[in-house]
Amino acid sequence: AISPDRLWDDLMETAAFGATAKGGVCRLTLSDDDRKVRDWFTARAQAIGCTVTVDDMGNMFARRDGLRNDIPPIAMGSHLDTQPTGGKFDGVLGVLAALEALRTLQESGYRTFAPVEVINFTNEEGSRFAPAMLASGVFAGVFEREWAASQKDRDGISFGQALDAIGYRGPHRCGDHPLSAYFELHIEQGPILEKENDDIGIVTGIQGIRWYEATMIGQEAHTGATPMTMRKNALLGAARMIETVNAIALRHPPHAVATVGLVEVMPNSRNVVPAEVFFTIDVRHPQVAVLDAIENSINSEFRTAMSDYDLSGSLTRIWENPPVAFDPNCIASVRKAAAACGASARDMISGAGHDAAFIMRVAPSGMIFVPCRNGISHNETEFSTKEQCSKGAQVLLQSVVEFDRR
Amino acid sequence: AISPDRLWDDLMETAAFGATAKGGVCRLTLSDDDRKVRDWFTARAQAIGCTVTVDDMGNMFARRDGLRNDIPPIAMGSHLDTQPTGGKFDGVLGVLAALEALRTLQESGYRTFAPVEVINFTNEEGSRFAPAMLASGVFAGVFEREWAASQKDRDGISFGQALDAIGYRGPHRCGDHPLSAYFELHIEQGPILEKENDDIGIVTGIQGIRWYEATMIGQEAHTGATPMTMRKNALLGAARMIETVNAIALRHPPHAVATVGLVEVMPNSRNVVPAEVFFTIDVRHPQVAVLDAIENSINSEFRTAMSDYDLSGSLTRIWENPPVAFDPNCIASVRKAAAACGASARDMISGAGHDAAFIMRVAPSGMIFVPCRNGISHNETEFSTKEQCSKGAQVLLQSVVEFDRR
Ligand SMILES: NC(=O)NCCC(=O)O
Ligand SMILES: NC(=O)NCCC(=O)O
Repeated sequence: AISPDRLWDDLMETAAFGATAKGGVCRLTLSDDDRKVRDWFTARAQAIGCTVTVDDMGNMFARRDGLRNDIPPIAMGSHLDTQPTGGKFDGVLGVLAALEALRTLQESGYRTFAPVEVINFTNEEGSRFAPAMLASGVFAGVFEREWAASQKDRDGISFGQALDAIGYRGPHRCGDHPLSAYFELHIEQGPILEKENDDIGIVTGIQGIRWYEATMIGQEAHTGATPMTMRKNALLGAARMIETVNAIALRHPPHAVATVGLVEVMPNSRNVVPAEVFFTIDVRHPQVAVLDAIENSINSEFRTAMSDYDLSGSLTRIWENPPVAFDPNCIASVRKAAAACGASARDMISGAGHDAAFIMRVAPSGMIFVPCRNGISHNETEFSTKEQCSKGAQVLLQSVVEFDRR
Repeated sequence: AISPDRLWDDLMETAAFGATAKGGVCRLTLSDDDRKVRDWFTARAQAIGCTVTVDDMGNMFARRDGLRNDIPPIAMGSHLDTQPTGGKFDGVLGVLAALEALRTLQESGYRTFAPVEVINFTNEEGSRFAPAMLASGVFAGVFEREWAASQKDRDGISFGQALDAIGYRGPHRCGDHPLSAYFELHIEQGPILEKENDDIGIVTGIQGIRWYEATMIGQEAHTGATPMTMRKNALLGAARMIETVNAIALRHPPHAVATVGLVEVMPNSRNVVPAEVFFTIDVRHPQVAVLDAIENSINSEFRTAMSDYDLSGSLTRIWENPPVAFDPNCIASVRKAAAACGASARDMISGAGHDAAFIMRVAPSGMIFVPCRNGISHNETEFSTKEQCSKGAQVLLQSVVEFDRR
């Protein structure tokens, strides 16, 4: 059995890397705090006898040999990066619970057939570099390596530059690393488990995600001396779209979600009519047909807003991740594990994207959810209890053991 | 007569300090480029025999003695700072035309009764530090010196720190500097003179200005996993207000203008429901009663938006500059000067704020406008011709001579 206290202590210890005043964590991918937590992870994994390797996208692999080292490892993992207003659990729990699971195997002397690995994927959040799950995407052959490394943050620094800056561009070619299976434990980030009073979510799939980038362009002018009728105010177009995107999602209840999360106004001066606004749109739904319908509505409303406010601009879909169905064997292993651990469980679809969505394309994958308070995530107050975390870690370990037995 | 070529050369020369790719100027107040243009101004003024002094708000005074040095100087001036997307004329023309006027007096050996000065006021634009005309405000006793020096830019650097950083905190106490009169030449920044084919605007006053700061607060949440009905999206409230502020101004035609120019979204991440939005509102009208009506509407719409979207927040008026009427003697001097120069002129009210608005409280003041192309300002393409600029400079010089004769 895993140790709840040890897991909890690890969670609290890593939360110091990028700790915020409000009790959360701001550990953007490939930042100096990310380097620190990676160094910490390496030291802890080596302390229990693992070998740690790094690939050329910065993904990290901590390995414990099995009885048969010619077969690919069964992996567990998630990510150690966070949102700017991140919590202590999103991603981190999946990596630290995997580490605790390995430590438990090691201490108990349990020998698996397959080697077992803990993976930390780079840039899962997609907050610093878009799109999300960039490095697991390269791992799974979804994104081109060079394209991924050239993605820039909002300050113009590329993923590749940031990787070199913290010294985590490893020697191994990302993707040349077969896996027998992949299991990811994560907080639910939504309200269902808490509401239904269940311990464990058996994640059967992930809804579809589409990301867009929009620019609206008008003309700088003096706010005091330019009559209302002579303006080309790009911010009016953006404001219209912010409200419209929300309204469109509400027209497809209960599952559709659509959000403008990032907005940049130029020149962003109190007495200049805004000339250019860049903003992003995040749309999700379990069905492709609904995603298509929402996309059509957004495109047509965007054209209307441009013409109403005399603006030019562009709206581009920069990423699409279709709905994912996890591997039946992995799902069965999680279901069996939850039962073996005496946890109450329910099947569910993930609202959030996860590295497992991409890894599923190259290895059988499955996910385990635990409840989080009020369903709140990407928020500094994000919280799951020690018991909830440790139940999840136990089911994670058991799932690997179940899968390994087959 | 002033030299059109020399004035134009000075305008083009100073435009190099902070020149942008699109042919404009980005010379935020108290930036290193501001330091450079100040050094340039000092050297030029000294070259024609002026003494240059600086006060403790960074305002600069270049003085040429008169026949009677016991009476306060007649001053001309404006500002050398620009917007982030500024042009080559807004502010700069008023300072360089004043310099050219002084140079012309000096070369012709014309002796004025009163001393004559050129003033460069700090932070007229209000883009880096709010409110606008901060240093002429201290000069005129409208703002407290300590309060003004403690105003912070959006990066948290105070006016006082920035002043010290470029070495322009002078020894003289700002405001201890009586003036006999103040004349300011400026581009119109609006469309009227061009449309009416007039050379000169005789500015009789400035419309009232009110600036507001608003914050709307919701809750960070995951864009994929948080149902639409569980959100507190601060950006929806801000978007509503951006459109509403525009609509309210349109309800008070033709003079009312109201604009949201600056918006900051937190945490500004593609997959986080926005938790906090800071934005500014700029409202202007020639009548206080209409400003009051607009303010009431904005306040009530703000409360409605907060309650509709389940947000908290605050809306604060941070600055009010009531409508200004310029001094009858100064207006008469400008009118006489325009006639003497053979310029076609019309009376007008300024849509933009100017340092003269504050100086009017402590000295008789007047303003002269020249046309600018398409009425466009606070824009890198802002443009006035050499002829327009030099006509303005000639009227400026003549206005000072007229006033000095009384
Ligand atoms: N789990 C998680 O928060 N992933 C970030 C990618 C996304 O779903 O937006
Ligand atoms: N003239 C000018 O652009 N002044 C800036 C202050 C304002 O009117 O907003």
